[in-house]
Amino acid sequence: MALNDNTLEAVKDDLLALIAPTSQADDAAPADMPGREAVADRLSEIRSPDIGEVLETLIEEDDALDVAVTTLDILATDRAANVLGYLPGDYQLLIVGTLDDSQVLKLLEEMGSDERADLFNLLDDDRREALLRRMARKEREELKRLASYEEGCAGAIMTSDYVAIASGMTVSQALMRVRQTAPDAETVYQLYVLSNDGELIGTMSLRQLMVARPGAVVDDIMIKDVISAAVDELQEEVARIVARYDLIALPVIDIDNRMVGIVTHDDAMDVVESEATEDIHKGMSIGQLEDGISRVPLWTLYRKRVMWLVLLVFANLFSGAGIAYFEDTIAAQVALVFFLPLLIGSGGNAGAQAATLMVRGMATGDVGGKDWGKLLGRELLVAGSLGLTMAIAVTPIGIMRGGDAVAFIVATSMITIVLFGSLLGMCLPFVLERFKIDPATASAPLVTTLIDASGVVIYFSIATAVLSNVAG
Amino acid sequence: MALNDNTLEAVKDDLLALIAPTSQADDAAPADMPGREAVADRLSEIRSPDIGEVLETLIEEDDALDVAVTTLDILATDRAANVLGYLPGDYQLLIVGTLDDSQVLKLLEEMGSDERADLFNLLDDDRREALLRRMARKEREELKRLASYEEGCAGAIMTSDYVAIASGMTVSQALMRVRQTAPDAETVYQLYVLSNDGELIGTMSLRQLMVARPGAVVDDIMIKDVISAAVDELQEEVARIVARYDLIALPVIDIDNRMVGIVTHDDAMDVVESEATEDIHKGMSIGQLEDGISRVPLWTLYRKRVMWLVLLVFANLFSGAGIAYFEDTIAAQVALVFFLPLLIGSGGNAGAQAATLMVRGMATGDVGGKDWGKLLGRELLVAGSLGLTMAIAVTPIGIMRGGDAVAFIVATSMITIVLFGSLLGMCLPFVLERFKIDPATASAPLVTTLIDASGVVIYFSIATAVLSNVAG
Repeated sequence: MALNDNTLEAVKDDLLALIAPTSQADDAAPADMPGREAVADRLSEIRSPDIGEVLETLIEEDDALDVAVTTLDILATDRAANVLGYLPGDYQLLIVGTLDDSQVLKLLEEMGSDERADLFNLLDDDRREALLRRMARKEREELKRLASYEEGCAGAIMTSDYVAIASGMTVSQALMRVRQTAPDAETVYQLYVLSNDGELIGTMSLRQLMVARPGAVVDDIMIKDVISAAVDELQEEVARIVARYDLIALPVIDIDNRMVGIVTHDDAMDVVESEATEDIHKGMSIGQLEDGISRVPLWTLYRKRVMWLVLLVFANLFSGAGIAYFEDTIAAQVALVFFLPLLIGSGGNAGAQAATLMVRGMATGDVGGKDWGKLLGRELLVAGSLGLTMAIAVTPIGIMRGGDAVAFIVATSMITIVLFGSLLGMCLPFVLERFKIDPATASAPLVTTLIDASGVVIYFSIATAVLSNVAG
Repeated sequence: MALNDNTLEAVKDDLLALIAPTSQADDAAPADMPGREAVADRLSEIRSPDIGEVLETLIEEDDALDVAVTTLDILATDRAANVLGYLPGDYQLLIVGTLDDSQVLKLLEEMGSDERADLFNLLDDDRREALLRRMARKEREELKRLASYEEGCAGAIMTSDYVAIASGMTVSQALMRVRQTAPDAETVYQLYVLSNDGELIGTMSLRQLMVARPGAVVDDIMIKDVISAAVDELQEEVARIVARYDLIALPVIDIDNRMVGIVTHDDAMDVVESEATEDIHKGMSIGQLEDGISRVPLWTLYRKRVMWLVLLVFANLFSGAGIAYFEDTIAAQVALVFFLPLLIGSGGNAGAQAATLMVRGMATGDVGGKDWGKLLGRELLVAGSLGLTMAIAVTPIGIMRGGDAVAFIVATSMITIVLFGSLLGMCLPFVLERFKIDPATASAPLVTTLIDASGVVIYFSIATAVLSNVAG
């Protein structure tokens, strides 16, 4: 079974009890610590992602960086490297900050090539230089290459630990190669056949390899039409391809069709999760956060939220201008203000719903530009029915508060505003995409603000017309 | 490379050209169709998910169900079954509706056990009975079992096509079993060791098996502490476990610890994607949609949107009541209405941002109940700064429109409303969770509506106090 929060809490308390008292006594060398073996025993039963979470809590809640560092020190280096990879970047930095270069080198060596590059990118220039100087040339160039890709693209999430098979190998040679690479490769279940120039010319699954005749040449059994991604492909597109074709790993190639790495299914899944978070935040006009909400710096959080909020303050002035224009109508019938938040709020809600349905549909590929006409017709019907239902709900209140004329104004305004708001919310993402702007910019706050302003004008126009008729 | 939209469009046009004219001539038997071989050739170059998309477009846009059916008929049965699995449920039903029982049986037989159960669940009772009668007993019971699990739980997304190894087998026997099961199993890369009673007692990866000594007994090399899920575990939890431990597949067990299936990484990824969609929709108070926005029935779309919209109409009456209460203040200074949408809109936007950040943080596991205090402090600082910035932005407009007193009222109200709204938005998800209500119920429309009402009261209270002071 997966561990639950209580178990993790217990492990944390154990670690604190076993390590903390000793580490506070300066004279005791860590190796002599009485708890060392007990800690090793305790940790041997726990999986790396769970140890990672325990260490994260130790640093975050108990301010016990020293305990976290000692725990890593007690683990075997490959396990410690693995656990380190599960920690958020800033905590990796904190831990690495307490270690000397040779300790860091050992950890880096045991990390997956993608996580090694990520950590390396976080280090300051001096430390990077110092570490690079102590690496073998091949290792150094590999690391520099992986660390050089821009965040958010295939190159930045790929690993170079894949199983490459040389063109011309036999099935039994390839199987031997799999056995040799097994400990280091991220996955051995999908194999890639490379030409002498390193070009990706075919792929096969381990499953295919295992049922093939041992003497057969891999070139005869491989699939030549390989699904791959360019090294600068966006990570969300990479994840989409992995999901669409149910891949275990997607090979990544450079512009010369040379294979440079693979993106594994688990990394693609992380992308799906983080892209969903980004989309959800965008839907509320919040900029992209690099880290969890509880760890991201306050200044960043402020910056990511403030821009649109202030822009929308000014956009909201249009609502105010609308109200100012109709000040006479309002002064004549102050009861109308009673329904103002209700009407513009309802329009905003319906419009935000419509926009969200479209934006998500476009993000998952369910909705394309060509569906626009069909969806417009559907939204007309649905929004019309919604407006009608809401108008019926609000009519008795209109009668109660202001009589028949006000009830009529409010009901008519409700239908019009909900219909207009929904169509605006639905169309805006398509319009934005047309102008090469991310459709997700049609966030709930933006749509709501636009509908607020339109709603004011619609409501008071109808009111002015009806009231002047009644008066006449 | 993955196929792009243009290629798929070309394939569709080819299919229409090759099949459509002949299928319109009633006297020509499909087997004599001149295009049959050409179609088979064309399709042999295309992957199943892509053929699935082409067929979907054929049915959706070209109303050419007959062409889609003929295309499936031309494919080999196993390929046809595979393609069928990529179609949305209602289209699978349409296609199956044109086939006789023996054709459907053949297709069902070749489908993955999970997709077979899904399709079976969509058929009407008569058809189900007719099909079950023609199945072998073992097959029938397997299908009935898989079809019986409630949607949204592990049982409903698992497959029974996994590789089971009997306790006591040697490594070479296990490898032989892998080779035999390879064509049928969903994955052969993770193996499960079962006791005589079918209890799950261990697991190992094919990678481990391949490097183990052929004569070793699997019980000695397997991992005994297996991560598994109960058959009634929620699918989002299943996906979380798969993501957390980077699994290729997660075994599913019943209450007696007997193994009943696996959830594979690709199905878990689909869950992450569809749960994200559900969360995004919930964030706008839209109920769960079973299908894409362009295919879901209009009546469903109406129902899923209307409930909260009408509820919020009534919630909005509180804003109205607030306004009615302050009618004298408004009548005395109509210019105040100018800033009403701006102030309550800004509070709503900031509050919706705060709520969304919390809800998503809780959904991804980044934020837990115990983080509440820390996050409250952070939100106080950030929301205070946001309110201050927005107050500064709005002050000049206040001076312009109504003089110093109005500017002071608007600026003070802005800070108070943004601060109050943000804290309300932040706390609501925690409160809901405390009362065992889904935190995602704290949707943008709900939060915005609550803040609208509070904003009205805050704004006009401050206005009344300041204006009476000025007057006094």
